[in-house]
Amino acid sequence: MGLFSKSIKTLDDLFVHTLQDIYYAEQQIEKNLPTMIEKAQDPSLKQGLRQHLDETRGQIGRLEQVFRQHGHEPKGVQCVAMDGILAEAKEILGEVSDQDVTDAAIISSAQAVEHYEMTRYGTLVAWAKQLGRPDCAALLQANLDEEKAADAKLTMVAESRVNRAAA
Amino acid sequence: MGLFSKSIKTLDDLFVHTLQDIYYAEQQIEKNLPTMIEKAQDPSLKQGLRQHLDETRGQIGRLEQVFRQHGHEPKGVQCVAMDGILAEAKEILGEVSDQDVTDAAIISSAQAVEHYEMTRYGTLVAWAKQLGRPDCAALLQANLDEEKAADAKLTMVAESRVNRAAA
Repeated sequence: MGLFSKSIKTLDDLFVHTLQDIYYAEQQIEKNLPTMIEKAQDPSLKQGLRQHLDETRGQIGRLEQVFRQHGHEPKGVQCVAMDGILAEAKEILGEVSDQDVTDAAIISSAQAVEHYEMTRYGTLVAWAKQLGRPDCAALLQANLDEEKAADAKLTMVAESRVNRAAA
Repeated sequence: MGLFSKSIKTLDDLFVHTLQDIYYAEQQIEKNLPTMIEKAQDPSLKQGLRQHLDETRGQIGRLEQVFRQHGHEPKGVQCVAMDGILAEAKEILGEVSDQDVTDAAIISSAQAVEHYEMTRYGTLVAWAKQLGRPDCAALLQANLDEEKAADAKLTMVAESRVNRAAA
């Protein structure tokens, strides 16, 4: 980012910057999900995370479509928020000794990831509509809907199985 | 955190650790909100953030009650996730030159903060119930409800005023 001049002048600039932020974040999630899948023991949790890894790849594809529709090459900018969320997940998982408690910690960490994505996609959908880009808004809304569904599924797995096993 | 032994053995340990995480996070939010309030121009946004600063102080008080009810002294542990979210907010606000776009960026950043709190409080409420602590769950639920209301209010300010002004 510019050290000597401010690089975000319009809502369009802010939209593209936030798109680059979530594009980087999704790529980090794609890199980190396999470790969570490996560490998870509960079969529903493992399966849910595997499904979300596939969804994440689809979401990256949709983001690339949004970039191109909006006249930009797909590009990421470092998202220190997602870096922090993933670093914290790694740290906590390294501290847990019990397998059932590990599953509870994985769900908590994965939901922190989902919530970050939900807030960014919610914002991007609103800005895309404001900028007169319903085509981009529709793709971003599809990503948002998948994040919400993934989060609800994690809550279901936590409340129906994992938290009880961990307690 | 322990370098040689794993410090989280039970769901109760994980609950207390996550309580310490959000306690630190709320304190960082309390420190950072005044800058956002100062930079905001839209009167509804300024007023909403001021109200949330008061709520944040109340939430810190409720967390201290939860610690004590659960037999622990209130204590924070560094939350690198919130550090990252706040660092990103600061970085983006430093890059925006236009005042209306600044307001849109403040809302986006504040909603990322709210969403992190929502996910942590949602998890803590579920764990408190599982651990047989409905008294702690009720206090954490009160914080969760305030976060959800604050997030909804920010969406309303964004969609009714700020995004239109920024576009």
